[in-house]
Amino acid sequence: MVANGTPAPRFASGCSELQASRLQLSLPLPDVLKHSFQVVDGPPSSSAGNPDEIAKLFPNLFGQPSALLVPSDTSAAASDQSLKIGVVLSGGQAPGGHNVISGLFDYLEERAQGSTLYGFRGGPAGIMNSKYVFLTSDFVRPYRNQGGFDMICSGRDKIETPEHAEETVNMLDLDGLVVIGGDDSNTNACLLAENFREKKMKTRVIGCPKTIDGDLKCKEVPTSFGFDTACKIYSEMIGNVMVDARSTGKYYHFVRLMGRAASHITLECSLQTHPNITIIGEEVAATKQTLKNVTDYIADVICKRAERGYNYGVILVPEGLIDFIPEIQQLISELNEILANDVVDGDGMWKKKPGSQSLQIFELLPQAIQAQLLLERDPHGNVQVAKIETEKMLIEMVETELEFRRKQGVYKNDFRGRSHFLGYEGRCGLPSNFDANYCYALGYAAGALLHSGKTGLISSVGNLTAPVEKWAVGGTALTSLMDVERRHGKFKPVIKKAMVELEGAPFKKFASMREEWALNNHYCNPGPLQFQGPTSNVTNHTLMLELDAGA
Amino acid sequence: MVANGTPAPRFASGCSELQASRLQLSLPLPDVLKHSFQVVDGPPSSSAGNPDEIAKLFPNLFGQPSALLVPSDTSAAASDQSLKIGVVLSGGQAPGGHNVISGLFDYLEERAQGSTLYGFRGGPAGIMNSKYVFLTSDFVRPYRNQGGFDMICSGRDKIETPEHAEETVNMLDLDGLVVIGGDDSNTNACLLAENFREKKMKTRVIGCPKTIDGDLKCKEVPTSFGFDTACKIYSEMIGNVMVDARSTGKYYHFVRLMGRAASHITLECSLQTHPNITIIGEEVAATKQTLKNVTDYIADVICKRAERGYNYGVILVPEGLIDFIPEIQQLISELNEILANDVVDGDGMWKKKPGSQSLQIFELLPQAIQAQLLLERDPHGNVQVAKIETEKMLIEMVETELEFRRKQGVYKNDFRGRSHFLGYEGRCGLPSNFDANYCYALGYAAGALLHSGKTGLISSVGNLTAPVEKWAVGGTALTSLMDVERRHGKFKPVIKKAMVELEGAPFKKFASMREEWALNNHYCNPGPLQFQGPTSNVTNHTLMLELDAGA
Repeated sequence: MVANGTPAPRFASGCSELQASRLQLSLPLPDVLKHSFQVVDGPPSSSAGNPDEIAKLFPNLFGQPSALLVPSDTSAAASDQSLKIGVVLSGGQAPGGHNVISGLFDYLEERAQGSTLYGFRGGPAGIMNSKYVFLTSDFVRPYRNQGGFDMICSGRDKIETPEHAEETVNMLDLDGLVVIGGDDSNTNACLLAENFREKKMKTRVIGCPKTIDGDLKCKEVPTSFGFDTACKIYSEMIGNVMVDARSTGKYYHFVRLMGRAASHITLECSLQTHPNITIIGEEVAATKQTLKNVTDYIADVICKRAERGYNYGVILVPEGLIDFIPEIQQLISELNEILANDVVDGDGMWKKKPGSQSLQIFELLPQAIQAQLLLERDPHGNVQVAKIETEKMLIEMVETELEFRRKQGVYKNDFRGRSHFLGYEGRCGLPSNFDANYCYALGYAAGALLHSGKTGLISSVGNLTAPVEKWAVGGTALTSLMDVERRHGKFKPVIKKAMVELEGAPFKKFASMREEWALNNHYCNPGPLQFQGPTSNVTNHTLMLELDAGA
Repeated sequence: MVANGTPAPRFASGCSELQASRLQLSLPLPDVLKHSFQVVDGPPSSSAGNPDEIAKLFPNLFGQPSALLVPSDTSAAASDQSLKIGVVLSGGQAPGGHNVISGLFDYLEERAQGSTLYGFRGGPAGIMNSKYVFLTSDFVRPYRNQGGFDMICSGRDKIETPEHAEETVNMLDLDGLVVIGGDDSNTNACLLAENFREKKMKTRVIGCPKTIDGDLKCKEVPTSFGFDTACKIYSEMIGNVMVDARSTGKYYHFVRLMGRAASHITLECSLQTHPNITIIGEEVAATKQTLKNVTDYIADVICKRAERGYNYGVILVPEGLIDFIPEIQQLISELNEILANDVVDGDGMWKKKPGSQSLQIFELLPQAIQAQLLLERDPHGNVQVAKIETEKMLIEMVETELEFRRKQGVYKNDFRGRSHFLGYEGRCGLPSNFDANYCYALGYAAGALLHSGKTGLISSVGNLTAPVEKWAVGGTALTSLMDVERRHGKFKPVIKKAMVELEGAPFKKFASMREEWALNNHYCNPGPLQFQGPTSNVTNHTLMLELDAGA
């Protein structure tokens, strides 16, 4: 009998040849982690914003320096000191999570003999409910270089009050806790670190940057793990669809890509594949575009392409697009208000309630989306924005617009849209060589930071466009990534999501090419992710462009 | 200005590193094609069924032997004889089509100097309308080992009357025509060959077996090209979704796979990935299952898994499932009848028309599917079966069944379904090493067969589980694959689609494992298709099992 939420262990019989060959792989470590090293502190740090408030919220941690590992004749930590460490996966899956744990495990095996590693099961809830497993060599082995989070699984619960974690941490007598997660989880990791230090507990906390969305990054943490693999998997599919579009010559493929808050995935996939149209949410918001503007832009490109004899194309759309359109936000909040207080009557009397602009937009939406907005609500009675199939909505709206133009004699072709959503397919793929190596280094570094007494840092591996051997390894003060947001009258610490910067190198590169890509066909098919051969270590465009620009 | 339907040539700037490395690849040829060979005829052939009728339909071709290429000191054809050859791609895209053309081109370059190769554009319509392009070395080069059909594009038109082709063929003074297509296209190729021979024209016709669906095969043609690559691409995605399902622990993923007529793709993907449930259309038909049976089977497995603590899973469904369910076929034909003659009134008066069994089934269907059946029709007024999203229909039906069981106290969990459709993503991927080599040999062989005066054969490459060097090469009489169907009172020749055989080795292997796969988790993630390394030459299960069984 297996408890709910506990996955069955991986069977050898359920392992493909490629999985087996990845299992056997031994990973390279950065040079500094191969020999004795010591931890060197940098200058005192501040915060990403509102340092005074952050200082108040983190009196024990604020200002602490970031740390860099450097070669040394003597080790920073006594190798005979054994440690008790816990590790937890938090939030959505990202390729490489198993390697962070493998790296941490190997650090303890090699540098702190006799240590114990506990894996908390099912995410942060596992800490609160003391659900854990001993991570032994046999337990960890089948997950090395494998996708997924199923070694210990993850969850979306938050440790809202650090007290909940204290009991478990004390019971297990933990020296350290490694939190592998996104912006929220790393914020919580920092709150735990602050709380533990305040209470003079010995447990130290180190975070690791995870999210396929790519929106947790800064100078010292150049990328979050999983982004590289996910974008390469999505780009393989987009590239295939492009070749199909060009071969068939009669479909417009609308591809919605994962990434609610930021459009990094969409931008990276665009740079990898060169679609005809790419909608970047941050640009839509910055230029205050309406849904009609977006629709018209797509229709314009389709008309121009028709003049050149191209009646096909590929269009990338970020999952979070409608969150970036102010008028839709307005409509949804007005609808939530109405739905909370009134019934929606068939006669449309409710339509007297929303503002006239919102009503106009509502009438513009395809019927299926209208129905979805009115009928499908979450347990709090709110419109379920996440369930809206943006790509299908755009197809219908573009169809309507082109029909209108046809009647005007401006457009003469048949428009046939095909919709795709690329999501789950990319979260649990076999990690790319980059993510496999990056995660292994992140985990190994987390072990080193804990071992040398650090807390409240996020594991940081840099110089990522160089060969692995030359990568820089250290930890960045989590408080230095923080700002505050005012919620319910209180200041809450947050690590701000890194959005697509319209002045950043990746967007500028895209912007410089998009007209050419729109009208001509420069489709690029990256093909399936390779683990061997000349293309197996290709750096993704976003990372390369950002690092080049920052250099 | 580019004519409608004519793709822009591929630009070097639109080529990924992997595409570039595949472009450079030089392909191995079977040993027999490397040196001088001659064509040896086998015994006279018959047909797959109704030989008397086939003999009447193909008086000039019936009974002709299949041909085998064997090493020889002197070449079968004079190498100084130059040829004029046309080639056409017919029907849906399949990875490897470009390599068939490359193989044919290279044969002519190497063995029939001074030859001309014409590529008919946009499929068979290109023959009828004399739309063609000279295939030169420069023109062909950027498409070598690349996915898609965009070198000359394809189309779904049929050459209904051979006379339409005669004019073009005579104008270009063609010695031969290579038709790359599925069962219908190869039937048409044979009709052309018969017609040309009857009229004593010099133009010979050779077919090549193409379809990702895998339903064009026989003893001499062990597989159609594209099937291997498409199944590997789909299995990569399914494998990723499986790892996600196990990591997340709360979703049932319903994956619909391309393949309307036969379920080979679904079966092969099942053998590659080991999902919890796989529905094989041919079995549903053979055991006369109803939609309720299929729904109950899925719900049963979900309930049993819930008892073991697994509230997640992966379910594969062939695109053509509902075509295999007799009662649905009945319902649809009754609906088509009603829709042709009556209006569907909101008051449901029309419901008095269908038989009571059909009405019962209609009432069982989810509302969205009901609406689709009634409202969305093709230009002939018929229900659009292809547009029904079978995976979504099953999710809703399973949900309803589980809700019913919950009320009975038999099922206590939350069921959350997620739908996927894998189609376009697999048709135009970079061909696997297998498909790249297989297609190159098929094309090279087609050249050899034409050069040695053969017509009415399908290019046949065998012994496919051996290394490429040992592959057997020849041609099989197209008439030997044929049977007749009676349509509108006339006998029509057809190449019968190869369905999944319930007594065949692939299905039996699946059937022997499915209970284990259903309740326990043996998920297997084949990962992305590799072009180098230990897994790059893996033979797909269907081919391996069928060849082993036939050996």
